[in-house]
Amino acid sequence: MIKALVFDAYGTLYDVHSVKAACESVFPDKGEKISAIWREKQVKYFFQRQLMGGYRPFDEVTRDALRYACRTEGVDLETEDEERLMMAYLNLELFEEVADVLEKCSDKQRVVFSNGSESMIVPLVESSDIHTHIDRIISADEIKQYKPTPAAYAYALDQLGLKRDEVLFMSSNTWDIMGASSFGFQTAWINRNKDQPETLDVQPDQAYTDLYGILELL
Amino acid sequence: MIKALVFDAYGTLYDVHSVKAACESVFPDKGEKISAIWREKQVKYFFQRQLMGGYRPFDEVTRDALRYACRTEGVDLETEDEERLMMAYLNLELFEEVADVLEKCSDKQRVVFSNGSESMIVPLVESSDIHTHIDRIISADEIKQYKPTPAAYAYALDQLGLKRDEVLFMSSNTWDIMGASSFGFQTAWINRNKDQPETLDVQPDQAYTDLYGILELL
Repeated sequence: MIKALVFDAYGTLYDVHSVKAACESVFPDKGEKISAIWREKQVKYFFQRQLMGGYRPFDEVTRDALRYACRTEGVDLETEDEERLMMAYLNLELFEEVADVLEKCSDKQRVVFSNGSESMIVPLVESSDIHTHIDRIISADEIKQYKPTPAAYAYALDQLGLKRDEVLFMSSNTWDIMGASSFGFQTAWINRNKDQPETLDVQPDQAYTDLYGILELL
Repeated sequence: MIKALVFDAYGTLYDVHSVKAACESVFPDKGEKISAIWREKQVKYFFQRQLMGGYRPFDEVTRDALRYACRTEGVDLETEDEERLMMAYLNLELFEEVADVLEKCSDKQRVVFSNGSESMIVPLVESSDIHTHIDRIISADEIKQYKPTPAAYAYALDQLGLKRDEVLFMSSNTWDIMGASSFGFQTAWINRNKDQPETLDVQPDQAYTDLYGILELL
């Protein structure tokens, strides 16, 4: 019996590539490329930080990754533009179906559980159309352990005061859905990009192309 | 005063993309692509395993990554071909200058320190031209903690019985060189592909395009 719906934010509720327009306005013809490298490197950098020890918050990781993306594309990132692009991360677009699905699940506790530090994830959710549909925001920054470590999922579970199998966890990111499945949450992989499954012995319980899928399940 | 030269294996001493020919012979016109995805996924998978907990040895990770690469490229991987390609990993080619450099450093302890499990790294080194120039092989599998965790580097250091700054560690992999630098080894990044540096506050002490660079240093 599912009591809480726990959603990853970046890539799952919010389109991280909606920063593309902001990147494009600063660096014409390079917006798509910079946006893609930015996200890819952001994930690599918090993996690296977590593995090396010496936790650094998500805003710092995100800024480091942006600088890498610009350097890779051979463009100078002025301080003012850097701030503007970092701000774009506080105004990511929701995927189309998100508000509708959240509204239809109002009998469950609806939670955002993100690697984003409070300074990034709270303004993002609060300023978006779903803020009235979200009962709670949990940041991995509170325990300074990034998903997909078991410690991160255990922290979220503890905050919710539930049993593992009373949580349905949703993410588009395979590294996240593998971590959550391995931890013991029920999981639904929101495979927005129609990626192929990972060839690991840990698999999500469900897979859907968007969040509408979970309405069948509940 | 450097007392031990510690070398990463995959990508640093040995060219992981020398499996391309074997991949090509099994899957014509797809060798390069499969080889590239194989390596990229291999790294992602041991990062993921390390972060999720529940360590799995490098041979299993490597096999999972090969299966992913083949599935991505839409080809069927027969059991026999899988074994053949896994065997190719035991016969990787040395980079051109490796034997010469190792021979010239015979006054130092020369060590291979790899994430490869014993069943992969020992046959690779033993059957290659440098086996007489390597004094010791250390596998992260002995402690079941992958680089770039501090625990992995600490294990190697403990095995060597040296102080951190008595070790010069070399890797082409930025995730590895960052981990080793952060741990406190002296480090030389062997930047074979002329990649740009990571935009992190941890940087290698030296950077060279191949191993000849360390001869200037010593």
